[in-house]
Amino acid sequence: AVAGPTADWAACETEGSCEPIAGRARCEPGPAGGGGLNCGFLAMASEKPVVAVTCTAPVNIAVIKYWGKRDEDLVLPINSSLSVTLHQDQLKTTTTAAISKDFTEDRIWLNGREEDVGQPRLQACLREIRRLARKRRSAGDEDPVALGLSYKVHIASVNNFPTAAGLASSAAGYACLAYTLARVYGVESDLSEVARRGSGSACRSLYGGFVEWQMGERADGKDSIARQVAPESHWPELRVLILVVSAEKKLTGSTAGMQTSVETSPLLRFRAEAVVPARMAEMTRCVQERDFPGFAQLTMKDSNQFHATCLDTFPPISYLSDTSRRIMHLVHRFNAHHGQTEVAYTFDAGPNAVVFALRDTVPEFVAAVRHCFPPESNGDKFLKGLPVPPVPLSDELKAALDVDPTPGGIKYIIATQVGPGPQILEDPHAHLLGPDGLPKPAA
Amino acid sequence: AVAGPTADWAACETEGSCEPIAGRARCEPGPAGGGGLNCGFLAMASEKPVVAVTCTAPVNIAVIKYWGKRDEDLVLPINSSLSVTLHQDQLKTTTTAAISKDFTEDRIWLNGREEDVGQPRLQACLREIRRLARKRRSAGDEDPVALGLSYKVHIASVNNFPTAAGLASSAAGYACLAYTLARVYGVESDLSEVARRGSGSACRSLYGGFVEWQMGERADGKDSIARQVAPESHWPELRVLILVVSAEKKLTGSTAGMQTSVETSPLLRFRAEAVVPARMAEMTRCVQERDFPGFAQLTMKDSNQFHATCLDTFPPISYLSDTSRRIMHLVHRFNAHHGQTEVAYTFDAGPNAVVFALRDTVPEFVAAVRHCFPPESNGDKFLKGLPVPPVPLSDELKAALDVDPTPGGIKYIIATQVGPGPQILEDPHAHLLGPDGLPKPAA
Repeated sequence: AVAGPTADWAACETEGSCEPIAGRARCEPGPAGGGGLNCGFLAMASEKPVVAVTCTAPVNIAVIKYWGKRDEDLVLPINSSLSVTLHQDQLKTTTTAAISKDFTEDRIWLNGREEDVGQPRLQACLREIRRLARKRRSAGDEDPVALGLSYKVHIASVNNFPTAAGLASSAAGYACLAYTLARVYGVESDLSEVARRGSGSACRSLYGGFVEWQMGERADGKDSIARQVAPESHWPELRVLILVVSAEKKLTGSTAGMQTSVETSPLLRFRAEAVVPARMAEMTRCVQERDFPGFAQLTMKDSNQFHATCLDTFPPISYLSDTSRRIMHLVHRFNAHHGQTEVAYTFDAGPNAVVFALRDTVPEFVAAVRHCFPPESNGDKFLKGLPVPPVPLSDELKAALDVDPTPGGIKYIIATQVGPGPQILEDPHAHLLGPDGLPKPAA
Repeated sequence: AVAGPTADWAACETEGSCEPIAGRARCEPGPAGGGGLNCGFLAMASEKPVVAVTCTAPVNIAVIKYWGKRDEDLVLPINSSLSVTLHQDQLKTTTTAAISKDFTEDRIWLNGREEDVGQPRLQACLREIRRLARKRRSAGDEDPVALGLSYKVHIASVNNFPTAAGLASSAAGYACLAYTLARVYGVESDLSEVARRGSGSACRSLYGGFVEWQMGERADGKDSIARQVAPESHWPELRVLILVVSAEKKLTGSTAGMQTSVETSPLLRFRAEAVVPARMAEMTRCVQERDFPGFAQLTMKDSNQFHATCLDTFPPISYLSDTSRRIMHLVHRFNAHHGQTEVAYTFDAGPNAVVFALRDTVPEFVAAVRHCFPPESNGDKFLKGLPVPPVPLSDELKAALDVDPTPGGIKYIIATQVGPGPQILEDPHAHLLGPDGLPKPAA
């Protein structure tokens, strides 16, 4: 008979160190070669034990953009990149991975819907994590890692934000998958490669705070890894606003898009070789010194240059919509009015803006956004996430913005901040898979 | 008493060679040092003779773009460019320049409205043409050129297309001014510098057909000149469609825009130095060999790269609207459907598209444009210029275009072709200034 979960993380703690190490994708294993289940394993009160681990991982937003691979298979980039990890209170992926002798095939459910587990990126992740697990397994047949490796895995993953919002979820998704599988298989080495195989930028979601992905030089990619530049506590005043733009047409996928860019854009190669290295150094300095104007200007410049290389691609790729451009214009006007750079935008492979500002600037900027993009129907739900006190907009600023309002151009704003890396969830109720290894019905 | 014009170009022909030399901005003078008025001069039957010349000049559209100056004063570009001269039957500027002992100040009327003659670009043109005239004047005080140089000039200029269309008119305008003043002052040297001082790309409107503006290397700009690559008769099948897009907001002016680009865009300098030279050679080859797919692809790539450098400018410059991007998408889909590049777009500093296609492709492409951008109110006036027979659109192409129609996104289409350079108008009725030296009332 299949019962509800009875073991929990308390039991685990007696067997090994289950401390979720913020920003580090590693898990201290229990005594190697023992017969017991390892850290992160949840023994079910069932004749056919299901071992399950549930973790969360954050979204990250690049301020020095990644665009273009030098190796498609290994997902090695043509330039380094640097990102800000967003707080999971607002945006996160939750993933449960479970293994059982009883499972007959690998399976995956994304946001409640079963997906093809055979897709190459997913297979690459599974292969890579199992390879790392084999490397560290001990000799005995009874070794739980060895046992786990012979089992099939069930994976369920959900986002706490609507996919329809067009927020890149693959980075959080693959970081979470890598982190969760590492716990399941007791892998403690660097997970950059596992996450990267799923989605390049996913390796940056393995850490909190400010994270660089060093492009590396080796052909095998062993030095193409993510590294924390500064922890999430480093710049507490920094705030992040996600301006969710009313979606338009289907877009060029980023995988196909960046491949075409590498093949056809003369500007992209120049950017990667001659522009980005100095920008990485400058952005690192801006973060370390908490130089907001420097950080903000370079963030905008690098977003624009990324989109410039998309336009230089043939056929051209266009991710910015007219609303995106209106947001850019608004930010520049807002800054010009204040005589200093107080707000920055950045755009990924879609029309949504991610805006950076210091805490004290946020209320006035949100008021300016409301002025330029009057909420259409959901005035009360226009602002999600961290609370932002309403403030009146001065007539001077209104005049300086000089825009024809575009009602409904922005669907809503998510206010968030810099946050920590992946977390392990110790509450067994958090598991997305039931004792039968199938997704729990949505509550 | 001031009478209507009595002298005409027949009289002129007996005094000198008045042949308008297509594509060459020169005019053979009458015998130097004589007391008679020179070629291109119209003697009025008045006690105070007004000498007037009227010429027309074409619009040109660059297929290798000019963006960025290495010398602001001399208007010297950071890269060479190449353009197609459009036919004056559809788009032209007409300019009358008149000199008289009686005029008390230089004056200019554009499209019937008097403008400030003191604006720097205009002053630079006047200074430059007068300098060239002085260089060639003969010694005697009675020399008509010397006389003319001491007179004030009245200038009237009109476009045969609405300024509201957002078509760059400054190139045609300054080319026409340079060409007309050269006739007035009997200047026969290369007019590139005169036109260039008004508007860089104006020097390309001094010739018909396919024209390159060689950037030159000299600091004084003497080798930064326009040159015809092929005459207008070279590629008779080539057609040009101007898709006039419903205008939106005010745009960054191209003079200020390109200066900011030079100062802030790392990609622009790379483009100018490392990309354009090879593209100039390749475009010249495509034109010479009438290689339409090559011409079309490079035209699109170079337009996109120009707009990419605008986006890489800080603050960024955005000339393409959503409608512009829809047109780009339509062209790529149209070509993909046909399995070859049959249509090309290019965009200057505004949202209007200029489309190139061979004659036999035009009817189907226009039908595709009508399908994607259903005319709103002016269905009968949607297509101007050269006649284009209506053809039905196949269901296969409709499906391949895969667009949500955007009614009214395109205001109208002007169908035209490659055309000749500036022309002198011999009909005295063509003068825009009356015998009193003031603009004639609009007919």
